[in-house]
Amino acid sequence: MAIQTDTQPLMANGLPMPADDLQVIKNGLIPPTPHSDIDPSRLTITLVPEDKLKEIPHADDLIFGQLFTDHMLYLEYDPASGWSAPEIRPYGPLTLDPASSCFQYCTNVFEGMKAYLGPDGVPRLFRPKLNMARMAKSAARVALPPFDTDAFLVLLQKLIAIDARWIPRARGHSLYLRPTLIGTRPGLGVTASTHASLYVIMSPAGPFFRTPAGISLYAVSDHVRSWPGGTGGHKLGLNYAPGFHPQRLAAEKGYQQVLWLLGDTITEAGAMNFFIALKREDGHLDIVTPPLDGTILPGVTRASVLSLLNAHPSATSLPHLSNSLRLYTHERPITMPELVAWSASGQLVEAFCVGTAVVVNAISRIGWEERDIVLPSYGGDHIGPVVRALWERLVDIQEGRVEWEGWSVTCE
Amino acid sequence: MAIQTDTQPLMANGLPMPADDLQVIKNGLIPPTPHSDIDPSRLTITLVPEDKLKEIPHADDLIFGQLFTDHMLYLEYDPASGWSAPEIRPYGPLTLDPASSCFQYCTNVFEGMKAYLGPDGVPRLFRPKLNMARMAKSAARVALPPFDTDAFLVLLQKLIAIDARWIPRARGHSLYLRPTLIGTRPGLGVTASTHASLYVIMSPAGPFFRTPAGISLYAVSDHVRSWPGGTGGHKLGLNYAPGFHPQRLAAEKGYQQVLWLLGDTITEAGAMNFFIALKREDGHLDIVTPPLDGTILPGVTRASVLSLLNAHPSATSLPHLSNSLRLYTHERPITMPELVAWSASGQLVEAFCVGTAVVVNAISRIGWEERDIVLPSYGGDHIGPVVRALWERLVDIQEGRVEWEGWSVTCE
Repeated sequence: MAIQTDTQPLMANGLPMPADDLQVIKNGLIPPTPHSDIDPSRLTITLVPEDKLKEIPHADDLIFGQLFTDHMLYLEYDPASGWSAPEIRPYGPLTLDPASSCFQYCTNVFEGMKAYLGPDGVPRLFRPKLNMARMAKSAARVALPPFDTDAFLVLLQKLIAIDARWIPRARGHSLYLRPTLIGTRPGLGVTASTHASLYVIMSPAGPFFRTPAGISLYAVSDHVRSWPGGTGGHKLGLNYAPGFHPQRLAAEKGYQQVLWLLGDTITEAGAMNFFIALKREDGHLDIVTPPLDGTILPGVTRASVLSLLNAHPSATSLPHLSNSLRLYTHERPITMPELVAWSASGQLVEAFCVGTAVVVNAISRIGWEERDIVLPSYGGDHIGPVVRALWERLVDIQEGRVEWEGWSVTCE
Repeated sequence: MAIQTDTQPLMANGLPMPADDLQVIKNGLIPPTPHSDIDPSRLTITLVPEDKLKEIPHADDLIFGQLFTDHMLYLEYDPASGWSAPEIRPYGPLTLDPASSCFQYCTNVFEGMKAYLGPDGVPRLFRPKLNMARMAKSAARVALPPFDTDAFLVLLQKLIAIDARWIPRARGHSLYLRPTLIGTRPGLGVTASTHASLYVIMSPAGPFFRTPAGISLYAVSDHVRSWPGGTGGHKLGLNYAPGFHPQRLAAEKGYQQVLWLLGDTITEAGAMNFFIALKREDGHLDIVTPPLDGTILPGVTRASVLSLLNAHPSATSLPHLSNSLRLYTHERPITMPELVAWSASGQLVEAFCVGTAVVVNAISRIGWEERDIVLPSYGGDHIGPVVRALWERLVDIQEGRVEWEGWSVTCE
């Protein structure tokens, strides 16, 4: 072990830095160039024996994120040697030092993606490069080592191909993918993790819309999910744990999800982006969602919904919507008093959440300051024409029945 | 696996809740009463064989948090059976499902404590009930299961007794303890972790003041550590990862630590609480630290420093400080413009950080908006009389040479 000297820099706890962090500083604060980035040609595959493969339950019995496929993708980063040879291996536990950064300082990043089975039987991903780019930004935000996202995507597609039998065939079903990057430095110094593990696990998922109904939201301002200068605009595990207690309080009051506020301005709904549809005086619709100001996750579904709305009717006709209906999208702050006023005046015709897991999800009512903003019921399920149009078109694109802008990418 | 129904509540991702969370909701949103809380009488101890015990390096060679003692304390929580029988076992890795909440959603809590060897050779802890109470609050904030902190403290003292040979004997040295609580639910639903692991690891630590010198801080407002309604007032792992990137940027500019701002108001310094000493017109001192408004960690050292300052000279005489000197403590916001003005007028005579790892640590300069606030040098090391007094008195109390208010607790 190195002896500390008078000139040795201090860590966040005021104690001398470990030698490997010193090295980072001496090299101009960029981690040393790894000897190797992710290299798909070094992939090793260890398959589960045929007779040990898991039984896949009926699609109706699937519960989100509870059952995992037979295999996982796994890589490690070491500052001396860079990224390890990738492994596809049987799904199984991780073995980690109890001092690891992922436990102590939450240097953890994840993505949510889905694989679909196209009409041709070929697995597909939905705009995967957007997830990869976001994951790289998330990693940088918590000072985890960078990686070649194109190479990682090649490996992810290989994993999907190996476990393709797990992709449910029914409409609206998919295989949910969870790429995860965790810091694994085994030391308590309050500094960046010099080591990491990168892995992908996969879980078959049913659709939300098998039981179609709007969900209820409880608007919360005493607990605040994100803040200017915080991490709410990045996909970090640490954005989620603080929501579980407020989520319990909301459920206690009879609401299914939290609507996160910053002051009286809406940011997100649960772990989803938030949209409203407002009837204009000219009979057309304004579709409004909060702007990407750093407090809001830049959702892939959010971006896709905005694109589809902007394309109607000039470039495509969304189902259930008349070609004479114009949809004007706006990325601007939405406050609760505005929402109350628009509801009272009858302008607020739909509200919905969007995200990878849910695709598009109607909202039935929003509780705020001891009253409810109740959305139009549309025959009981609160699913208005905009929600229905977006869900159907997105699922059709995701499952390869409708080609659109190259969003659906086949895994060869 | 349960079949989802139309009335099934949704998770944060809009998909149906797993059955165990449903049960939580049906029971009034409080996890079911566990069959057992932590029970020290069920402790099992597995010792490392004598000939396999680690070699303890010389105290001068210790680097904070890099080397761990021979044993660790370990317990698990299962919603069906409660807390497991406690184990003291050889230090070793944890084995966890890759879907565990601790990796995915950062449901992770820790504490920092120190064990000291008293003049009588008996190990001592410093105000451990304050750490236990804070840990219980942290656990509740991220919806982790509660536990009997008194029983946990009994077990922690037992662990210290078993590894007592690791407590360094030199003044200002100690055995750093890291109690850790992590969520271990193996599922991707965005809900509270129903399972947990609770453990303690220990690492021998040298003192900061072996190389005495003030540290430099870089005041940062574009990255924000904490905000009203956030988690900055709790000891959660997730408060730390977002600081690593700004910490690198500060080091790039030649500063050792970040001084966290909210707007232009100071919150914390690195992972420590922040204090200043101001010379009054009457020759006495105002000692100011930001208030516990929820954005600031309620530090055990912070509380102890305030108590000692308030006790001088009526109840105790702090070393290096005249009995005719009065110390007026204030918990109130400190802004950067105020700091600049007090520095320019000569009122700002000392600035320092306090925390468990560092005890008390002088600050030499603070960079803000392209200029430096330089603190008085006191012969070069920037250690003024207040810092010196507090450090000496705290270490004397911690190591059992001075008895004060029962703060130092022996481990029998």
